[in-house]
Amino acid sequence: MSFHYPNGKKFVPEQKQAVLKNRNKKEKDFTYSNRGMTLEEDLNETNEYYLLSGKAVIHKKPTPVQIVNVDYPRRSAAVIKEAYFKQASTTDYNGVYKGKYIDFEAKETKFTTSFPLSNFHEHQIKHMTHVVAQGGICFVILRFSSVEEVYLLEAIHLLQFWERMNSGGRKSITKEEIIQNGHHIPLGYQPRIDYIKIIDYLYSLT
Amino acid sequence: MSFHYPNGKKFVPEQKQAVLKNRNKKEKDFTYSNRGMTLEEDLNETNEYYLLSGKAVIHKKPTPVQIVNVDYPRRSAAVIKEAYFKQASTTDYNGVYKGKYIDFEAKETKFTTSFPLSNFHEHQIKHMTHVVAQGGICFVILRFSSVEEVYLLEAIHLLQFWERMNSGGRKSITKEEIIQNGHHIPLGYQPRIDYIKIIDYLYSLT
Repeated sequence: MSFHYPNGKKFVPEQKQAVLKNRNKKEKDFTYSNRGMTLEEDLNETNEYYLLSGKAVIHKKPTPVQIVNVDYPRRSAAVIKEAYFKQASTTDYNGVYKGKYIDFEAKETKFTTSFPLSNFHEHQIKHMTHVVAQGGICFVILRFSSVEEVYLLEAIHLLQFWERMNSGGRKSITKEEIIQNGHHIPLGYQPRIDYIKIIDYLYSLT
Repeated sequence: MSFHYPNGKKFVPEQKQAVLKNRNKKEKDFTYSNRGMTLEEDLNETNEYYLLSGKAVIHKKPTPVQIVNVDYPRRSAAVIKEAYFKQASTTDYNGVYKGKYIDFEAKETKFTTSFPLSNFHEHQIKHMTHVVAQGGICFVILRFSSVEEVYLLEAIHLLQFWERMNSGGRKSITKEEIIQNGHHIPLGYQPRIDYIKIIDYLYSLT
């Protein structure tokens, strides 16, 4: 079955990304066997839907790579021969919605009763602190993969749980705490993860 | 001589970036012989200054790379053995200033009387159109490298010149037009290219 976006164009999935993802897919397929989609794929499709429908402009940043050696057989076909994955200094997703700056990170866990804070890195937390201070709309999208439940948790809460950990407290957020402080995002067909609806509600942007 | 940012920390240049940049440096040094800095380096330092002084949170996006082959000798040291440069689907810089979404592209030319529109790609123009429609603050930073003059030109003007080209008009923006429609950014010591000052002026954000 083929479906169409509001601009009348047929949806074409990003093959290239699929190729890249295949490395980890076997493992992921286990938890997403019903749909065969990772959280990242769902968000990419959601963002593409937002873009094509004129709702928001939000992109995933490229994976940061430290390039060491490049071969230039011809100018038009430079081949990177040696490179390394670098730690990102920011979150993965950002963009604009109604003039506002949107910034978020997306993570999933196989745990069922809590979300380990080890999913986040110190530099990402630092970045979120900066964004919040600058008045940006900043949050995380958390997926409990075994039950396919997705939550939006504002950065301000995540930062508090991070702080608690640094003060000797627990190294995870309980699911109860996520339910209390966050917002459940029901999985949809199109868009799949309609997080902008939560942003509308939280910031009264409609 | 060492100098300090307002947060009291000593400035540490990004060595890694410098290494990457060395490839193209010889060529660039010719036009930047006085300072040995590229436009990208100047903007990175400017953005770092904005970040450390709490003025704005703006980052350059990583170079998009299509990874084809990765070697995993050990888990901690994956080596990318084959990869290719991909065309970016957005502009290079974005972030947040006083809650507003900031988005820009930076380009330089050795020409002295006009700025060739071939410096921009169709998809970047498309992205800028989307950002403008979404109420983001979108612009380009243009440098005439031979005279070391830097201008900020709002996307709305760039889009008009692009449109003119598509309607059979000239394939560049004359320097006169840039002076008339854009805003000269005097080069400073710290920050080097204080584009936020122009944004303050244009959008009355102070």
